[in-house]
Amino acid sequence: MIIQLEKNITEANKDKVLSALSKNSFKIREVKTQISDYLVAIGKNEFDIRLIGNMNGVKDVHKVDDDYKLVSGKWKVKPAQIDLGDNVHIGSNGFTIMAGPCSIENENQIQGMVEFLLQNNIEIMRGGVFKPRSSPYSFRGVGIEGLKQFYRICSANKIKMITEVMEPEQIEEMYEYIDVFQVGARNSQNFNLLDALGKVDKPVMIKRGLSGTIDELLHSAEYVFSGGNEKIILCERGIRTYEKAYRNTFDINAIPVLKEKSHLPVIIDPSHGTGNRNIVEPITLAGIMAGADGAILEIHECPEKAISDGQQSLNFNEANKLFRRMEQTYDFRKQIYINALD
Amino acid sequence: MIIQLEKNITEANKDKVLSALSKNSFKIREVKTQISDYLVAIGKNEFDIRLIGNMNGVKDVHKVDDDYKLVSGKWKVKPAQIDLGDNVHIGSNGFTIMAGPCSIENENQIQGMVEFLLQNNIEIMRGGVFKPRSSPYSFRGVGIEGLKQFYRICSANKIKMITEVMEPEQIEEMYEYIDVFQVGARNSQNFNLLDALGKVDKPVMIKRGLSGTIDELLHSAEYVFSGGNEKIILCERGIRTYEKAYRNTFDINAIPVLKEKSHLPVIIDPSHGTGNRNIVEPITLAGIMAGADGAILEIHECPEKAISDGQQSLNFNEANKLFRRMEQTYDFRKQIYINALD
Amino acid sequence: MIIQLEKNITEANKDKVLSALSKNSFKIREVKTQISDYLVAIGKNEFDIRLIGNMNGVKDVHKVDDDYKLVSGKWKVKPAQIDLGDNVHIGSNGFTIMAGPCSIENENQIQGMVEFLLQNNIEIMRGGVFKPRSSPYSFRGVGIEGLKQFYRICSANKIKMITEVMEPEQIEEMYEYIDVFQVGARNSQNFNLLDALGKVDKPVMIKRGLSGTIDELLHSAEYVFSGGNEKIILCERGIRTYEKAYRNTFDINAIPVLKEKSHLPVIIDPSHGTGNRNIVEPITLAGIMAGADGAILEIHECPEKAISDGQQSLNFNEANKLFRRMEQTYDFRKQIYINALD
Amino acid sequence: MIIQLEKNITEANKDKVLSALSKNSFKIREVKTQISDYLVAIGKNEFDIRLIGNMNGVKDVHKVDDDYKLVSGKWKVKPAQIDLGDNVHIGSNGFTIMAGPCSIENENQIQGMVEFLLQNNIEIMRGGVFKPRSSPYSFRGVGIEGLKQFYRICSANKIKMITEVMEPEQIEEMYEYIDVFQVGARNSQNFNLLDALGKVDKPVMIKRGLSGTIDELLHSAEYVFSGGNEKIILCERGIRTYEKAYRNTFDINAIPVLKEKSHLPVIIDPSHGTGNRNIVEPITLAGIMAGADGAILEIHECPEKAISDGQQSLNFNEANKLFRRMEQTYDFRKQIYINALD
Repeated sequence: MIIQLEKNITEANKDKVLSALSKNSFKIREVKTQISDYLVAIGKNEFDIRLIGNMNGVKDVHKVDDDYKLVSGKWKVKPAQIDLGDNVHIGSNGFTIMAGPCSIENENQIQGMVEFLLQNNIEIMRGGVFKPRSSPYSFRGVGIEGLKQFYRICSANKIKMITEVMEPEQIEEMYEYIDVFQVGARNSQNFNLLDALGKVDKPVMIKRGLSGTIDELLHSAEYVFSGGNEKIILCERGIRTYEKAYRNTFDINAIPVLKEKSHLPVIIDPSHGTGNRNIVEPITLAGIMAGADGAILEIHECPEKAISDGQQSLNFNEANKLFRRMEQTYDFRKQIYINALD
Repeated sequence: MIIQLEKNITEANKDKVLSALSKNSFKIREVKTQISDYLVAIGKNEFDIRLIGNMNGVKDVHKVDDDYKLVSGKWKVKPAQIDLGDNVHIGSNGFTIMAGPCSIENENQIQGMVEFLLQNNIEIMRGGVFKPRSSPYSFRGVGIEGLKQFYRICSANKIKMITEVMEPEQIEEMYEYIDVFQVGARNSQNFNLLDALGKVDKPVMIKRGLSGTIDELLHSAEYVFSGGNEKIILCERGIRTYEKAYRNTFDINAIPVLKEKSHLPVIIDPSHGTGNRNIVEPITLAGIMAGADGAILEIHECPEKAISDGQQSLNFNEANKLFRRMEQTYDFRKQIYINALD
Repeated sequence: MIIQLEKNITEANKDKVLSALSKNSFKIREVKTQISDYLVAIGKNEFDIRLIGNMNGVKDVHKVDDDYKLVSGKWKVKPAQIDLGDNVHIGSNGFTIMAGPCSIENENQIQGMVEFLLQNNIEIMRGGVFKPRSSPYSFRGVGIEGLKQFYRICSANKIKMITEVMEPEQIEEMYEYIDVFQVGARNSQNFNLLDALGKVDKPVMIKRGLSGTIDELLHSAEYVFSGGNEKIILCERGIRTYEKAYRNTFDINAIPVLKEKSHLPVIIDPSHGTGNRNIVEPITLAGIMAGADGAILEIHECPEKAISDGQQSLNFNEANKLFRRMEQTYDFRKQIYINALD
Repeated sequence: MIIQLEKNITEANKDKVLSALSKNSFKIREVKTQISDYLVAIGKNEFDIRLIGNMNGVKDVHKVDDDYKLVSGKWKVKPAQIDLGDNVHIGSNGFTIMAGPCSIENENQIQGMVEFLLQNNIEIMRGGVFKPRSSPYSFRGVGIEGLKQFYRICSANKIKMITEVMEPEQIEEMYEYIDVFQVGARNSQNFNLLDALGKVDKPVMIKRGLSGTIDELLHSAEYVFSGGNEKIILCERGIRTYEKAYRNTFDINAIPVLKEKSHLPVIIDPSHGTGNRNIVEPITLAGIMAGADGAILEIHECPEKAISDGQQSLNFNEANKLFRRMEQTYDFRKQIYINALD
């Protein structure tokens, strides 16, 4: 059960609500986010929710029979829109493209990428500065100093920035130099990191685990929301299967299922979802038709020379064509669903 | 190596070709299909293919470094078009819809379905008469008599028909009452069945195995082609993964990869690929954008009463809307790739 | 519900039983096997089974709440023992070794193998004569003539023989030259083949599918049993997973779970379950400790020269050592469970 | 390439080695562990290793063609033995049992468990104080204060203790109250945590990821070793597959494969590997026969009342019987391999 509280509820009134819930054996978690104050009540008792709904200081009450609560679509019909500031949004309306290199390499690269993005009206740049690598001997990113450089150039050009955070301790030092925190696939169930990101007032994009379930992804999002941060974006990036013809199997089913189960925006990552630049375009357009709210794409001025993930990065020419077709495809999707009630 | 022979090659000239290949330690398989005569030569010797190419009676020679040969896209750039007669085609140009119930139930049902298909300009009806079921106690189909009835009604209405064949012995009795033989997922590596279908002059649609690889699917197709039948259609129907949120995980990556590796048409089965009627529509439209040549869909006048697979069948109203959007999506795909060289 | 009938039940008495079941909306399947006559009644009605149990001609009645019935361990506590004749048995007591080459190659090979097996007191030889191969161009076995030769040598030496059958049509021609029919992993859900094997009076060993579930394997066995043949052996041979370090992932959990769910004997195939001769031994001994009733092993006089599966075949020296340790391990398992009630 | 340095190598001599490597385009990582000083040289140049081997201050040089280096079995034939102090060891010789509850609940429980372990000569207790849980609303452990209590009781009774660490920041506060750090399956590729544990002088047990590969597990161990800590234990705990009959599929193949690829000890976790107390015993004994160096088991005085994982925990009576059989099985394994060169 989710109880939305009035912002100005008195302590006395809140105590009455808490006490009514406790009497009925509900465990309660108080959640204060950027947007609202909630009580999440977990319990199995049958209960007439109007008893709570009519109490002073209570704005609304919702039964949610999913195991996750705050991220469920059952209590919030309207899709969430995540605000990145400066009139940049993700979700609800419009299609968001995030693009950039797998790894930030140097200032020249960032500069060239920013120019390319500006030419294509892309508002968000991706780029790893801390790279999770299977081997300790692989390149592990330019680190915090690279991040500052990256952010300086991006913000000077009014480009928002998303990069991966790998542990709670990094959050503070990264905070000022980042617009969206990304939780990578290998950290999708790093609960301490998710807890810590719940205390932050910047958007968080959570990638599905290497072999994470839909349910686990939504529970990971619940960690962040119940920690106090409801600016959450979900990301489908392919799953691990027996098939060796591609790096990952992009799970297209996940898109409509996540959109149905949750009010959070869903971004696709066809670069990791395929691991193969030759099929990034058809999978991206497919993902748009399946209902995605945006896409994050690996691009590189010269994929053959990329420090990491060159085989799945598009060059500027390929990216340019794809961006145009993505826009057309999104417009087409909107158009065929205009006036449709389904 | 694939050697295409002239239809009128003399025995003497053919012997010369065979002998040249044998001398170079190639194992040879002679293949005569509806369209052409081939020699498939398997071997590892380095070889100047012009030596063969210039021999009398040889039309063309192609090196193919895939393990499968005749179904490879390496020797045949132009996509195959499968002719079902009466101007009905699958592949190469145009998008094909096959629709109908999971199982044929009775004459009334067929009649109602045929009318619905005619109203929607659908030229091919699906419907199982032999049903592979995990349990021996489940409904196992109306059998051969049902098939005759099914075919009679369909052909009277100029509707082509596809149904599943389960063993070599059934081919002969089914032959006159069928337009396309379907090989089901559980028989995707039933090599005796594939061999037998290689000797038939009707199209064969091969579904990918429950956890079949891309490579295995193409090898299964190679069985049919090398047996003498090149009227082959590939079908992506979802794979088995750890994810329990849906019956199968529809493998959208398979579409562009199969189209790249092979010249055969690729049909999608979003009904089995999702197991969930609520997401059949977005996955179907996604599959079109990813490059599919057609789709096979389970529909039922009243899915709630279907003998099998009701949970993944669309009702007529849903199907009607989807058909319209499929057409629009296919047109849109064609349009954005017009004048594109990529 | 399973109703065991007296062998001499009168038609009149049987009709009374059938009618009592029908009145309660049960669907009934009559099953006559080598051992007993059964009625399998499928239905959801609550029902006092004593009503049936007390009727004339009824030997016993059992409620079975699994979806599979006759193969369930719920109605038959005592493990089945499969009789191969000449005092050779599988299951219930004692450990069975089947060994031999992946493919029968020639008479010399069979002769050498038979001698080796005799020296090691192995009573059952394996060897494929019809080989399911992914590619149509691979060696596909010596066929029926090879089988006859194989059988002649084996029976002259009192060695029982198991080989794979690939389609219903082959059963009759193979029948006289075989002791156990093997259903391969790719045919584990070839329901027509399973149906046909239900009508045969020779034991059938069913391998789990490439990515078959426990439940599917038991249902496949139910096909054979409900067809009239209760001489069934289950075989765990590894499953397909994401892990590339071995050909298959041997599913050791399946052994105790199958033994608990069913009364049928469970044979392990560590050769396919690993695909790697270096680890065949530890996995075989592990499988014995987990409760297996026997093992089927690929061995070859010279694995490096084997036509197929050389990489997972043991040579005679390795096999000899392993056989000795298998015997010791089985004796050890028996000993630690003597006097144990668990 | 791994270069073992003499402990007392002079800076001048080391510089000569480094310079010889650099000239040949090797990237070098210096590693100082509790036991030795190493240079790990990564590069592709062909190189006569004797050139390095003969230099002053160099103890030994080894070519290692695996991607992981220090954890590879290629340079170190003798299995590692991890020293926990007070004459408690893991690996090389002898079989180690770690047992205890999934979660530490209270002092009484610890006290009862310690007594039970002492009676059974078990030297290491497991017990979670920080619990990674899919849902933020589940019990998440008693935390650091519980750990202190846990450690106090254990060390008073000369019982060593293993518990899970979830983030780098926790290491310092846990350090004094722990004997072995456990990295859980969800953190198996938390590279920052692995890096941090490389700087610690206490043993680290790394669990394989939920769908981690053998290769990834060894690379995760390489993080810790190359960070400076070579007290590493590997743990097979089951993988995620399509099979729903059990929580995880215990990967028995992993045991001999890990033992072959690495010199590190391999511990099995049959509780998580099955998720089902009914089959914990056969899988444990199987794992011993497959070559495991030890096992970690969930036990609980009253599994029905356990806060977490009750369905896979053994009660004291079951555990007591199992411990006895484990000992017998390990003795049996030793005995059948005595005098064996294989």
